[in-house]
Amino acid sequence: MDTMGRHVIAELWGCSIEKLNDLNYIEQVFVDAALRAGAEVREVAFHKFAPHGVSGVVIISESHLTIHSFPEHGYASIDVYTCGDRIDPNVASNYISEALGAETQEVVEVPRGMGPVQVKKPIAKVL
Amino acid sequence: MDTMGRHVIAELWGCSIEKLNDLNYIEQVFVDAALRAGAEVREVAFHKFAPHGVSGVVIISESHLTIHSFPEHGYASIDVYTCGDRIDPNVASNYISEALGAETQEVVEVPRGMGPVQVKKPIAKVL
Repeated sequence: MDTMGRHVIAELWGCSIEKLNDLNYIEQVFVDAALRAGAEVREVAFHKFAPHGVSGVVIISESHLTIHSFPEHGYASIDVYTCGDRIDPNVASNYISEALGAETQEVVEVPRGMGPVQVKKPIAKVL
Repeated sequence: MDTMGRHVIAELWGCSIEKLNDLNYIEQVFVDAALRAGAEVREVAFHKFAPHGVSGVVIISESHLTIHSFPEHGYASIDVYTCGDRIDPNVASNYISEALGAETQEVVEVPRGMGPVQVKKPIAKVL
């Protein structure tokens, strides 16, 4: 497989506090996001923290999706990394952003596996 | 918990082909890397691909470590993301780089959970 990949880093703010604390909901959203982007799901691992917050990952054939949620801040830290050029990671990250009720989404895309890391200009948008 | 985090993106080239294809070895290296950095391991999920390559994640209390290996290219794509300021993600990524026998390591650090994403200048070094 070619090493080329696209890594979307998304900072979501103003999310639903309730959703950010719901492990089952987040896990389903992440699996759905992977499938909607056309990825193949391989492993799913999520963890609920006390008193609040969820961390988790979906490993896909094309790399991974991760989340760390901070319900008390309405903040979720998202990564969607897809290898190859068949899948657009933004399809997954936009779906996640909407599903978590984010008010603002700040996205930066990092090319992977292509030599020197050149980070594209961050894009912030109010949703 | 504070949203502030440090996300190290490391591109490792010239790694040991044999090690990049050894799921058990990589899993142990990643758990060790997390512990050496002072992190608390919560979930471990690794997957071996046919004909070659390993993907995996260690979820820590402080966020995550991930790998996608491409043995046929001697390339490993590493992320070490740690929340808070107690842990230095570079301790883990440097340990992983050495354990995989990387000849070159290119690292970029992305601050997370602090508002606009400002990516620090990438650092490339021959090991």
